[in-house]
Parts: sequence; structure tokens; C-alpha cells
Amino acid sequence: MLKFTKLQEDGKARRGILETAHGHVQTPTFMPVGTVGSVKAMTPEAVRATGAEIILGNTYHLMLRPSAERVAAFGGLHRFMNWPGPILTDSGGFQVMSLSGLRKITEEGVAFNSHLSGERFMLSPERSMEIQNLLDSDITMAFDECVKYPAEKSVVKKSMERSMRWEKRSKDAFIDRKGYGLFGIVQGGMFRDLREQSIKALTDIGFDGYAIGGLAVGEGQDMMFSVLDYTACALPDDRPRYLMGVGRPSDIVGSVLRGVDMFDCVMPSRSGRTGQAFTSHGVLNMRNACHIDDHNPLDATCTCPTCQNYTRGYIHHLFRAGEILGAMLLTWHNIHFYQNLMRQIRLAIEENRYQAFHDSFMEQYAYDRKM
Amino acid sequence: MLKFTKLQEDGKARRGILETAHGHVQTPTFMPVGTVGSVKAMTPEAVRATGAEIILGNTYHLMLRPSAERVAAFGGLHRFMNWPGPILTDSGGFQVMSLSGLRKITEEGVAFNSHLSGERFMLSPERSMEIQNLLDSDITMAFDECVKYPAEKSVVKKSMERSMRWEKRSKDAFIDRKGYGLFGIVQGGMFRDLREQSIKALTDIGFDGYAIGGLAVGEGQDMMFSVLDYTACALPDDRPRYLMGVGRPSDIVGSVLRGVDMFDCVMPSRSGRTGQAFTSHGVLNMRNACHIDDHNPLDATCTCPTCQNYTRGYIHHLFRAGEILGAMLLTWHNIHFYQNLMRQIRLAIEENRYQAFHDSFMEQYAYDRKM
Repeated sequence: MLKFTKLQEDGKARRGILETAHGHVQTPTFMPVGTVGSVKAMTPEAVRATGAEIILGNTYHLMLRPSAERVAAFGGLHRFMNWPGPILTDSGGFQVMSLSGLRKITEEGVAFNSHLSGERFMLSPERSMEIQNLLDSDITMAFDECVKYPAEKSVVKKSMERSMRWEKRSKDAFIDRKGYGLFGIVQGGMFRDLREQSIKALTDIGFDGYAIGGLAVGEGQDMMFSVLDYTACALPDDRPRYLMGVGRPSDIVGSVLRGVDMFDCVMPSRSGRTGQAFTSHGVLNMRNACHIDDHNPLDATCTCPTCQNYTRGYIHHLFRAGEILGAMLLTWHNIHFYQNLMRQIRLAIEENRYQAFHDSFMEQYAYDRKM
Repeated sequence: MLKFTKLQEDGKARRGILETAHGHVQTPTFMPVGTVGSVKAMTPEAVRATGAEIILGNTYHLMLRPSAERVAAFGGLHRFMNWPGPILTDSGGFQVMSLSGLRKITEEGVAFNSHLSGERFMLSPERSMEIQNLLDSDITMAFDECVKYPAEKSVVKKSMERSMRWEKRSKDAFIDRKGYGLFGIVQGGMFRDLREQSIKALTDIGFDGYAIGGLAVGEGQDMMFSVLDYTACALPDDRPRYLMGVGRPSDIVGSVLRGVDMFDCVMPSRSGRTGQAFTSHGVLNMRNACHIDDHNPLDATCTCPTCQNYTRGYIHHLFRAGEILGAMLLTWHNIHFYQNLMRQIRLAIEENRYQAFHDSFMEQYAYDRKM
């Protein structure tokens, strides 16, 4: 049971507050990804200092190492990793589906071999709920199947229908408590009728929130937006909407316009480790020699500690020398950039100027669509 | 010109304050190593929070990348790396000597090929002074030669004598300013008469401080202490004494007893990256499976953020999963451990109980002599 309060609307864009057992989340929100119990190269204090209020953990990775039972013995994922705020966990479904060749899907669930030990594991709706409960996730994701893109409509239909059966079993197995919620996941690929059937099935079951799965899988931004156009606002108005695994800054800005409230993506942290910096005037590759004598910060308008204290020349040096501090400083900056974007988005909705904000952003930051 | 005030003596152990252009240093002190302009896996704020007051930079690495001239253009090493406190730089001599096969030593200096680009460089007393001046080092080290251990007495003698000529040239080339100082380096291997000749030569030249070089090169702690027995207290009483590249905790405790004031070593940071934790009851290898279900902190008596917020089980998990945060948390803990040791050392001297502190430490922490 999760309380979600819609504070304001501006077109289809929504400004809200989600209340969980571990604190409030202002929406629209972006969740940094802490795959195996750590937002890579960041302390939890640093993650919080960027403005992040909720992070994402991965069921698949954590069930293999250190194991959900072990995390539970440590008092849950929050205590284990020293992140006192809300945590959303995925169901493990997306990752086990990606283990092609190593996994076998039946109506019961997915049997697979650990990529670490080779050991055989089983993931089913019931086991996924049990694991996410052991992790003490504030937001549990229903167990679903995500087909590869592109795929035949008949394949997508069959998969979506199985996902709906699995999500019903997820709901039945989920232990409902105050401050803890279960999100259903809409599937159906790029097919409007399948998306609509999926939404009907999910709303009949009833969830605390609704995620949109099967997007950002290679279909391109235009098609993603066109699916969102008919999917997002068909979801219950009084429940949070989460677009999984998205995305680039322009993906987020365009999705909020279409009624989405929550996002997650490895992009800011992964880019930070590989030397890419998000700035208000484009993405910089800090490994490029052009930065070697640059005494400017990454972004003169940015208030993050990296931009307050370090030059592009120094960050370039750290990456060239292979220093861990380079990944630390750039990840911090990138997550701050994303959180700052969310602050701007929330403010624009509050001030009823989201369409203008969107249009100006799309014009100015179109660069990221080439990433 | 550096001001050094000896506040107190306890046997041969000394408690002092060193005043530099970038702030005061309480001695005995331990300097974390920031080889290429970063104490690996730490922000400067975190380094400072451990209690560290001065750090070390490496001339050899910085002259190759990003280059001393470039660091100078960024306003010196303090500004480049965002460390506002004192910095000591080595002369580059020790590193270029280690490039066997790639370097040629003449009376003029050392010609060598960069291990990064293969480009030919020359390091001489005059160039080393110029580089350290460009880096804006608070404490510049004289350019010397360090022979391999073990070596014939005739070889050590010849090398020591050349070092003394190079150190005289270093003094002549050093630009003296208030708050900036030049340290001479005693050589002479394990030979008492050569050490005495070296000290005589250096004190005739006159330096702001005196370092003891050519120790911790494989001779073992007993021999190191026996050399220190006649070397440390033969150095001018009113000037700081620095034992280069040392060491393990017991090395430091035993060297302070013999009159040493300053230390540096990569051990706490390097161990942190490879999973070794210094604790009050021994060194732990955090990769060992025995820690997997351990809910205790690394060290129950430690006040560092790692011990306040994380369990051994979590740190073990981070190292097993290859997470950068593992190196960050363990480096922080280890440098805090070293700085806490220095706080205990300074307090014991202030309270005139250093011999008792030393004896009890040596009995309890003898483990580290096996490292």
C-alpha cells in the first residue's frame, strides 16, 4: 500500500508525491541504479547529495550474490548498503530473459544458470516476490517477460499474455504492508491493441503503480514516444507511472510530457565511469585531448562539487592516468545533472510552463538523441 | 624557509609543528601518497577528514603526465588537485633509478625514457628543483641517487658521494621563499661510516629538513632500526626528520622512538584497493569468504565513516562484486587508521609515555612485521 498524491497537472505532465516506508519521493523522479548494492563509484551520502530520493536495486544480481536471504539477515538492502531512503527493485525478469541459451522459460517461470557460478536457479512470480520481500524493497516489481525487439506480433501477444498471468500470480504472492507497494508492468511491444489489452488486464488485478516495460529496447525515440502517447495516459490517473530503463535526458523530458512520473537508467553512472560528461551544452568525452589545458569546470552553470572544485583539465588527467577519482567525480556530476533536470522538470510543472520547457529543451539538447 | 618548532621531547621521540605556505603540520605526521595528483580512490575532502594534514606527490609521474609546466598553468598542484594543504614532492630520483635498462646515469643527472610514451627525458638536480617549483611544492626534496639493496660498500660509497654533489646542486638551484623548504636526503646504505659522512656533507650544505633515504628497501625491520639508531639522532635537532617510504604501523612506531618526525607510504591506500584492512586486532583480507556473514564493522574501536556505516559482510560483498565503492571505503578506513595511529603517537609523546606506548604496540601489533 503506497500513498500517491497528485499535486498538480500541466497538460499530461504530473507533479506528485509518493510516500513509502522509507520516505517521500517527489515526482517526476529519476532513480540512480545500484545494481549489486552500490551506485557504482558513489557513497550513498554523495548519491543523496545530488538530490536523489530513491534508488533502484537488481533482484537478479542480488539473488546470486550475496543472496536475498543474506541481505535479509543484514536487515534488508537499506541497512546492508547504508541507503536509508526508498528502494525500488526490479523483478529479475528482464535480466534472466537476457541470458539467452542459459535459460528455460516455462509457465512456472524461468530456470537459468548463474553467470557467476553456473549454479542452477529458478525465478518465478512467487520466488521474485519472496526475494524482493527479503530485500525489503519499498517498491516491488511484478515478475514479467520482456521479448526482444523487433518481434512478430504473435510472439509479443503470447508473451504479453503470459506476463499478465505471471503478474496476477505476483499480486497473489505479494505481502501487502503500509508503505510497501507492488507495481504492475504493461507489455505489448509496439502494438496498440496489445498494450490496451495489457492495461486492461493489469487494472483488473489492481496495482499500487504501473510501469511501462518493453520500451527503450532499440525502437528509437520517435516510436517510443508514439507508444507512450497512447499508453501512459491510459493508465490509472491516481497511481504513479514508471517508464523502465529510460533514459537519455531528452527521453525523460518527452516522457514527462506524455504523463510519466518515474525513471531509472544506468546512463549517468555508466557514462561517468567511461569519461562522458552530461552538460548544459552537450555531452563531453573527457578522454579527448582537447580538454588537457582547459581550466573551466565541466559545466559553468552546475553546482555539483565536481564543477565547484575541479577543472576539465584535471578530470581529463584523471581519466588518462586511470585514476578511480575520475569515475567518482564524473559519476557524481552526471547524477547531479540528472537530478537537476528533474528539479527543473518539477518546477516547470508547478509553474504551468511544462510545454514551453519541453520545447526549449528539445531544441537545445537534441544532441543526446545521437547517443 | 620552513619554521619547525619542537614542542616536546620524550626520550628521542619528538612532538613538533611544521609551518608551511599552505598550513601547519603536527608532527610526527604520516603523509598519504597522491602519486599522479590524486590519493587513489579518495576525494581530497575525505583525505582531510581522516586527519591527514600533508600529502605527497611524485615528481616523476607528474613531469610525464600532465607535465610540470601544465600543472603550473593550473595554479600549481594544490589548485590542480583541490588539496589546499601542504604538499611534499619527491625529487623523481628514486623512480628514475628504478627504470633499469631505460635510463643512463651521468654526473649531469639521469636520462630516461618515459614508461608512458617512450619519449626521452632528462632529470638533473637543477631540473628537479625547477619541476618541484612549478608544482608549487611546500617541501621540495633534493635530487639524489638510491642504490639497490644489497650492494657492495664501494658502490654505495660512490653513489652516496654523487648524491651529496647532486644535493649541493639542488640547494644552489632551489629558490628559497617563506613557507617553502628544501630537504636533504641522507644516503649511505647500511654502512654507519657512510651515513655519518653523508650527514656531515648535508649539514655543511644546510637544509630545512633532513630525510633518511635508502631504507625499507628489503633490509628488514631490525636492520632498518639499527641504522636509524645512529642516523636519526645524528641529524640536526632543530629540523624535521623524514623517513622516506615507510611503512607498516610497527615501522612507524619504532622509528618515532628513534627520533623520526615524518613518514609516507602507499601501504594504506594500496592495501585498501586490494582488500586489506588495518585494524586494532590485525590485518584482515576482506576478500576471504569468512567475512561473508559478518555483521560487525571492520574495527569496533574505529570512528571512520566506513566503520560507522558498513559491515564486514558488505565490504566483502563489494570486493567480490568488483565494486569501486569497496576500494573507496577501505582506503578511507586504512588512511584513517594510519592517521589515528599518528594521533595516538603524538598524544603519548605529549603525555611522556611514549616508551610504554611503543612497547605495548610492538607486542600487540607485531603481526604487521609479517606483511
